[in-house]
Amino acid sequence: MTDSSEPALGRRAMAMLDELARYSDDAGRLTRLYLSKAHRAAAEATLELMQRAGLDAHIDPLGSVIGRIEGTDRNAPALMIGSHIDTVIDAGRYDGTLGVVLGIVAVEALLEEGIAPACPIEIVAFGDEENARFPTNLSTSYALSGKYNPDWLDGADEQGTTLRDALAQFGGDPSNIASIARDPKRYRGYLEVHIEQGPQLEAAGLPVGLVSAINGVTRARATVIGEAGHAGTVPMSMRRDALAAAAEMIVAVERTGAVRADTVATVGVTKVQPGAINVIPARVDFTIDARAPNDAVRHDMVADILNECEAIAEKRGTAFTVEPFMDSPATPMNKALLSRLEEAILDAGIVPHELASGAGHDAVAMAELCPVAMLFVRCKGGISHNPAESITVEDADVAARVLLATVRKIAS
Amino acid sequence: MTDSSEPALGRRAMAMLDELARYSDDAGRLTRLYLSKAHRAAAEATLELMQRAGLDAHIDPLGSVIGRIEGTDRNAPALMIGSHIDTVIDAGRYDGTLGVVLGIVAVEALLEEGIAPACPIEIVAFGDEENARFPTNLSTSYALSGKYNPDWLDGADEQGTTLRDALAQFGGDPSNIASIARDPKRYRGYLEVHIEQGPQLEAAGLPVGLVSAINGVTRARATVIGEAGHAGTVPMSMRRDALAAAAEMIVAVERTGAVRADTVATVGVTKVQPGAINVIPARVDFTIDARAPNDAVRHDMVADILNECEAIAEKRGTAFTVEPFMDSPATPMNKALLSRLEEAILDAGIVPHELASGAGHDAVAMAELCPVAMLFVRCKGGISHNPAESITVEDADVAARVLLATVRKIAS
Repeated sequence: MTDSSEPALGRRAMAMLDELARYSDDAGRLTRLYLSKAHRAAAEATLELMQRAGLDAHIDPLGSVIGRIEGTDRNAPALMIGSHIDTVIDAGRYDGTLGVVLGIVAVEALLEEGIAPACPIEIVAFGDEENARFPTNLSTSYALSGKYNPDWLDGADEQGTTLRDALAQFGGDPSNIASIARDPKRYRGYLEVHIEQGPQLEAAGLPVGLVSAINGVTRARATVIGEAGHAGTVPMSMRRDALAAAAEMIVAVERTGAVRADTVATVGVTKVQPGAINVIPARVDFTIDARAPNDAVRHDMVADILNECEAIAEKRGTAFTVEPFMDSPATPMNKALLSRLEEAILDAGIVPHELASGAGHDAVAMAELCPVAMLFVRCKGGISHNPAESITVEDADVAARVLLATVRKIAS
Repeated sequence: MTDSSEPALGRRAMAMLDELARYSDDAGRLTRLYLSKAHRAAAEATLELMQRAGLDAHIDPLGSVIGRIEGTDRNAPALMIGSHIDTVIDAGRYDGTLGVVLGIVAVEALLEEGIAPACPIEIVAFGDEENARFPTNLSTSYALSGKYNPDWLDGADEQGTTLRDALAQFGGDPSNIASIARDPKRYRGYLEVHIEQGPQLEAAGLPVGLVSAINGVTRARATVIGEAGHAGTVPMSMRRDALAAAAEMIVAVERTGAVRADTVATVGVTKVQPGAINVIPARVDFTIDARAPNDAVRHDMVADILNECEAIAEKRGTAFTVEPFMDSPATPMNKALLSRLEEAILDAGIVPHELASGAGHDAVAMAELCPVAMLFVRCKGGISHNPAESITVEDADVAARVLLATVRKIAS
């Protein structure tokens, strides 16, 4: 890549990203919630981009845009490439949409080269990845895996509109969701390109990286109960200060999260009662979010965290209770697909760098259907879910060419 | 005290406390705010208790009740004994009022013994100790020290009533405050008996204790600024987690507060931003309250706390700022008065036990006028500012007899 020529594919991708960024529910910022008017407009624009690239495209009953080219062997299992085009409120333009346009760019380039793929290729633009409107999460990709739960249609947004009604307004078809489910035998794999949404590739000086796994997540609410008292009259030796205990636990959560490779553990919320400058805190509630690419490692980490917290509570004479409310397993990436991506990265003269995905992606749902693998693209400062989200045209070009080379290998 | 007979003085004190507890601004609980109707009623009842005990009593222009007996030497400087009869909202009946009724009981007992004191004795029931209605603090005792600030009259309560208007409604006289100021040459000392409001005497198994000093207080607001980030995608090694940093600081505040004898340091308030389970905290604001019976010791402790916090911030790459907003000096107790109290305690067969007062008292303001000393009385569980506040009749009796013996020594 050192003598890289004009980043033609990167420019095409950036032009498509610029176009799709025009479709927003809010003036002056990018907000594109699932099944909103802006989502409909962006889906239709995506449909047109696919059609212009030479794909046979449609919008499915849940609003996902699907484009397909047939392979020379029509019966060969298809390769699917995709990501999502819904966004958070006040979003950046790359999260999700980059993976969709790079799929289109890669297939377009393949067809321009006159290469007829051996297997069918599908590009998909999912619509419900951000969990920003309805209680659902990854519902449009779970529909392809045959894991759509019809109860999700009854979930409502903040205005009280159910997903069922929103789908009807969008022009979708809630009665036809089962038809979306794919036959696993007909799919050889799913590739997803996505911005990293973290700082590791930037720190490593690399444009792209291989996702080793999508982390599993444990979430819990913890409570420390001590004893309130006058901040002036209770000697230090006679206190059972819930905040001092919780503080020691928060440091332990951080330390334990850093002991193992690729794990993270975070306390994001802390509430102190009664919360007065001259009163020793009686109660602290805090959250724990712990993630790892391997579930056994994650469970070990969480056990260590809880043991440390319990030891701190016992030493201090405070009560400690914990209520876990999420134990979401890790999604491993398929070794064979990862190897194809790695070869393409090496061929591009780039050092292959593996990193775990701390955030969830449609690939989690697609892993229920077929082998999956993901490619991360460097983003500036690791910033995402923010209008400051940014990538370079050169990095987009590298990602497009790595994806194109990978598709050539898989579909030849 | 081992062969203690009927606790007659304790019973008298408890009967007076029961009577005064009837005067409340709220039905069903004890609330007696400065210059309220309940305060007026309690002041009149206190006046009557003083008169029945044989004192010449009046209510002064700020609502304090003052009773006096002359000494055989009318020109000798007077001994003053007192505390306050205002309360917090939903209070206990002993905080403040105990010191007033024990003064009355002691003088009454002295007169019953037929002892004519050599010097005049005054009992005072202050009205503005709890800082529970107006912005003022200890205004009624500062008036005796000649330190009343006329601007305080413009301070308003939550309903917008100024202290000046409340004083007029009470029957006070804002134009005559200067007349309250005493001549320091005319006062030999001020004694205040008060419940401990902490757990030390109970833990030591002692009914009373000598106050070594009223602690000085430093208060400050601290802010830690780190960097927000996705709790899943930012590796532990690349974080600048404001909460983890603040947690380490909170533990350091506690540790530093426990290093020196008789010091305390407390973090009572912590606010985390943005405060979401899946976001690394960007900012934490917390309070520091540090107290010591010696100002140099307190300043050393605070310097150590700030040095530790700055070192933690530097190590973690977070910003740390601190804004001190209170540096209230300690009030030492007078050695000679303390010796008289200690002799009386020893004579009663009790081990003298010194402890610092973590909370402020009218003695702080009276120290501007004359030598002061305080006696603490054991209270159940260290609980105060709460209807569960409790002392035993036996402990009230011990305190009354210690006070009586001390008065005999000083006024003979």
